[in-house]
Amino acid sequence: MKKNFTQPISGAAYRVQDAFFSRLREAVRKNVIPYQWEALNDRVPGASKSGCIANFRAAAGESDGEHYGYVFQDSDLFKWMEAAAYSLMWAPDEQLEAELEEAVRLIAKAQLPDGYVDTYYILTDISKRWTNLKDHHELYCTGHMFEAAVAHFRATGRRTFLDVAEKLARHIASVMGPEPEKLHGYPGHEEVELGLVKLYEATGEQAYLDLARYFIDERGKKPLYFEEETRRQGNSFYWKDGPLGYAYYQAHKPLMEQERPVGHAVRANYLYAGAAAVARCTGNDTLYAHLRSLWAETTEKQMYITGQVGSSEYGEAFTFPYDLPNDTAYAETCAGLALAFFAAQMLKVERRGEYADVMERVLYNGAVSGMDLEGTAFFYVNPLEVVPEATREDQRKSHVQPVRQKWFGCACCPPNLARTLASITDYAVGIAADHTVCQHLYVAGDFTAQLAGTGVRFALRGEYPWSGEITINVEPEAPVDFTYALRIPGWCGQFGLTVNGERIDLAPDNGYVYLTRRWVSGDVVALALEMPVQRMYAHPAVREDAGKVAVQRGPIVYCLEEADNGKDLHRLLLPAQSEFTARWQPDLLGGVVTLSCKGLRESGDASRLYSTQPPTAEEERELTFIPYYVWANRGEGEMTVWVRRA
Amino acid sequence: MKKNFTQPISGAAYRVQDAFFSRLREAVRKNVIPYQWEALNDRVPGASKSGCIANFRAAAGESDGEHYGYVFQDSDLFKWMEAAAYSLMWAPDEQLEAELEEAVRLIAKAQLPDGYVDTYYILTDISKRWTNLKDHHELYCTGHMFEAAVAHFRATGRRTFLDVAEKLARHIASVMGPEPEKLHGYPGHEEVELGLVKLYEATGEQAYLDLARYFIDERGKKPLYFEEETRRQGNSFYWKDGPLGYAYYQAHKPLMEQERPVGHAVRANYLYAGAAAVARCTGNDTLYAHLRSLWAETTEKQMYITGQVGSSEYGEAFTFPYDLPNDTAYAETCAGLALAFFAAQMLKVERRGEYADVMERVLYNGAVSGMDLEGTAFFYVNPLEVVPEATREDQRKSHVQPVRQKWFGCACCPPNLARTLASITDYAVGIAADHTVCQHLYVAGDFTAQLAGTGVRFALRGEYPWSGEITINVEPEAPVDFTYALRIPGWCGQFGLTVNGERIDLAPDNGYVYLTRRWVSGDVVALALEMPVQRMYAHPAVREDAGKVAVQRGPIVYCLEEADNGKDLHRLLLPAQSEFTARWQPDLLGGVVTLSCKGLRESGDASRLYSTQPPTAEEERELTFIPYYVWANRGEGEMTVWVRRA
Repeated sequence: MKKNFTQPISGAAYRVQDAFFSRLREAVRKNVIPYQWEALNDRVPGASKSGCIANFRAAAGESDGEHYGYVFQDSDLFKWMEAAAYSLMWAPDEQLEAELEEAVRLIAKAQLPDGYVDTYYILTDISKRWTNLKDHHELYCTGHMFEAAVAHFRATGRRTFLDVAEKLARHIASVMGPEPEKLHGYPGHEEVELGLVKLYEATGEQAYLDLARYFIDERGKKPLYFEEETRRQGNSFYWKDGPLGYAYYQAHKPLMEQERPVGHAVRANYLYAGAAAVARCTGNDTLYAHLRSLWAETTEKQMYITGQVGSSEYGEAFTFPYDLPNDTAYAETCAGLALAFFAAQMLKVERRGEYADVMERVLYNGAVSGMDLEGTAFFYVNPLEVVPEATREDQRKSHVQPVRQKWFGCACCPPNLARTLASITDYAVGIAADHTVCQHLYVAGDFTAQLAGTGVRFALRGEYPWSGEITINVEPEAPVDFTYALRIPGWCGQFGLTVNGERIDLAPDNGYVYLTRRWVSGDVVALALEMPVQRMYAHPAVREDAGKVAVQRGPIVYCLEEADNGKDLHRLLLPAQSEFTARWQPDLLGGVVTLSCKGLRESGDASRLYSTQPPTAEEERELTFIPYYVWANRGEGEMTVWVRRA
Repeated sequence: MKKNFTQPISGAAYRVQDAFFSRLREAVRKNVIPYQWEALNDRVPGASKSGCIANFRAAAGESDGEHYGYVFQDSDLFKWMEAAAYSLMWAPDEQLEAELEEAVRLIAKAQLPDGYVDTYYILTDISKRWTNLKDHHELYCTGHMFEAAVAHFRATGRRTFLDVAEKLARHIASVMGPEPEKLHGYPGHEEVELGLVKLYEATGEQAYLDLARYFIDERGKKPLYFEEETRRQGNSFYWKDGPLGYAYYQAHKPLMEQERPVGHAVRANYLYAGAAAVARCTGNDTLYAHLRSLWAETTEKQMYITGQVGSSEYGEAFTFPYDLPNDTAYAETCAGLALAFFAAQMLKVERRGEYADVMERVLYNGAVSGMDLEGTAFFYVNPLEVVPEATREDQRKSHVQPVRQKWFGCACCPPNLARTLASITDYAVGIAADHTVCQHLYVAGDFTAQLAGTGVRFALRGEYPWSGEITINVEPEAPVDFTYALRIPGWCGQFGLTVNGERIDLAPDNGYVYLTRRWVSGDVVALALEMPVQRMYAHPAVREDAGKVAVQRGPIVYCLEEADNGKDLHRLLLPAQSEFTARWQPDLLGGVVTLSCKGLRESGDASRLYSTQPPTAEEERELTFIPYYVWANRGEGEMTVWVRRA
């Protein structure tokens, strides 16, 4: 096993000033986090009630009141806390810190003496806890608490929340595990596996890793825990009669026997991300090899070009290889993020460009499309083709919204995006144990790292993803030997690399070039990634993209919107020989590069519904493409990523 | 109003020997009708229980037992009786006639003294009758009884069943109508309107026509009867929260204010068919003009090329103009038939080729596809594109079956198809009051008609729809003057016409040519309809057919099947210049003309899911098309009507 084992740069040590992420992160800091705190406190008029803080207050004995909301309501608070903690690293804020500490205090107070925390069971019937692992999300919430507690510890250095998390982790380890007297269960919604590994990495406590491994190994073994639990407890089983069954939970058979991604797409990728972390920390090559195969099945057969996954609204689930409908895609914001987490964990096992390529594809396209420009409205579902009339009149598309919504009753996506954007630097750079600095994403800004005992300041500049020209000033406190691994994206055909103006000829090794040298103050790395507009084609087995083309420039996937191109986008054709003009438009949609070219439009309106005359007289028509991630910011209208080829 | 007012030829007077319909009618006679009688009597092992005859037996007091099945279960028997009656006209059968008479006896015995018949309420709580017109189908069943009773009367000359029907009609007229003390209701599932007009035409009783007109006029008036009934009776309203609401029943506003077809497709077309019959019999030009507009909205914006309607499984309903998804089509067998009934009624108002064209399109394609070769298995849903894997793994397509089923719990389609095929000659020829003989469909065989007091024998020969060469020997008992109207199908660009070898140059007038002459024994009409293979294109607003082509020859729409063309039919392309070879294959699929031509297949299997290389190296591949109506008779496999253009 080629262990990568990178550590992130602290968010505090990475001052981001980036053409893409700065705006998004400011939206998270200024709008998403404060808004969500108000929402969690039920102080937003007109918004769906959360009940989240009220639940904790009642569980802590500070107020009366019944549990409100979903069984996984607690996770909304934990994800908010994680986002808030990451945000505090790079944007200190006394009020936010006070709110965060108040949340920690409440959770600690709500925690039962044996370590259990889950407001649903504390406020209903505690004797029923752990009786519905299949559907009641206690372990899911736990996982989010662990991730939040680790973030809080990293941000503040305080162990208050980490102590709560560890106490809960010890409780779970006392209830579940391989010993005969324990429950041989595992979560219905995976997430705790990754949380446990993060807790293990933060504390070094082997028991947490062991428990994560147990959950991965035990899942899907016969007799099936969920089946026995359902019978024993008289629980319901929603997916019983459909085509999914226990595959909805990835629990129909052991992970090692699962040959392709199945079931609920968020759960599946959380499972794979957790399993990759376990594989890395336990040195399990067999598990990693199996995850490599699931990775390929996911990203090479069931991923949208936007990096999104989950083709079907039914079960919010994967369907089957090459089934990627654009207009009925589920492509939940959380599912894209989950795939990015899977990618990030695989990248920690082995430094392969394909992992970073997918991570980048999600983070610049199908995940950030989940939020509007200001961070005040959100998509749950991220389709690749929308006709507003169809979303209203065709029940099959009723899950597709043509306009982002303020908030959701099931508010999983906004805080998930917030925590990811707030910690984007963790995805951008990793420092390996051998001091290799791995530049996965070109997030511009200044960051410092301790390399072989020497502080090194990196100043990364450029207008990525709008330009492929990147310069990095490397400023060590003293000359120091280390390797700087620079990712050459999979979309980049040609690149130039210089150090201090001197051309370096290196072929990428699995997606990275390695600059190994004694670095001295004033060193300048200049990377020029060619970024032509690319016509992208889907594998011919993808029925829904047959005869169509998508447009990409650098990591950015483009789309056509009605606002620029009129109605009936399916009537537009993109000729093979049309040349694109790329235009930087600083005042459009938060600042984007638009693409335009000559296209064609099929006419023939006067014709019968069916006739022997093909649609003719293709008029020339200027086509204007905008980045997919900013679609639906100019009112309701049609949108499509895939365009017909002429 | 140009009243057409044609009368059909008696089925007994039309001996069919047709290349298309003979096989289908024999399947109906030999298999569908006997099988269904057994099913109605619950004597088919393994089939869904019907309970139909048992319900009538219990209602007649001949046995104990509770009502079984849907509230509209009675209609299955009535539709079977109608099919049986029509079948008896051209294929006398003592056993079948005895069974039919037994059914009549049972129904008459079950009828209450006041005329009411509906086993659901007779066997449950008679005090609740007429309390849920919206959903409880009493009037729907009634309509089918009226149609069956008229067929029984035409077939046997006996009034036994007609008496039952009239007694029920009088009962309904005493309960519903404009008078203040009556219910101001109308059926939730239309059908009684057409049944009442047929009863009126068979008996001359004006009250039945008045009631049909009342139902048409009252429908959708505010305050809404269904709304008041729902409130008054505490009924449920399934469609309340969806996009359909009362439009599901075409009751959201008066018919005259409905601008496009909406809601449940069978109901909508039954309503329009009934309204057309009312318009004709009442001379209501305004209503007819409005129906012309609904006809255009239906057939020129929401009809599949197979003649089918109902784009969405949700509500088995129409969606919106030009929304014609192929792979999730509902296109219920009954909906196609309902459109044929609408067409037939419009054709009785005015002789326009467009009505006969659509009627022919349905009857040769999207309706008869509902039955297998032997008449032992049936489709409810008639999609235009099927990938078996998708029907199993994609919940959106779970209503689509890749293989016909033996029977259904809701068994509306098989008997509907049976009654239509058994009376196909009614659709083929009509005799107008001025003795014009209207040849709408070229159903080969011998028929006789009384024209101006003279018996005339017509011997229609040819291999239609496989050949466009038709000869008709006209044999009057004595020389007689009349007009023979021959339909020139809309698909036919060129035709030749001779009488006794002498060329007749006539341009079609609204789809018909009129031969007016003194006919004498030995006259021979020869019609040659050019029948080249035609590439058909959808209106450019049809998103799902963009860039695609369908193949038609004469009235027959073709498809590609996996059995002939392998998997992944979406990878096949039909070049514009490929020439077709048409082959008569007597031993294939009951005898069909297949079409073949050179096509292309996209390769590129080795490529990534997304790449900058378009699928290339298009291999030449022979494409084999079969008639759509015989698809899925050779095991499970892919099928598509629309093929990509190269």
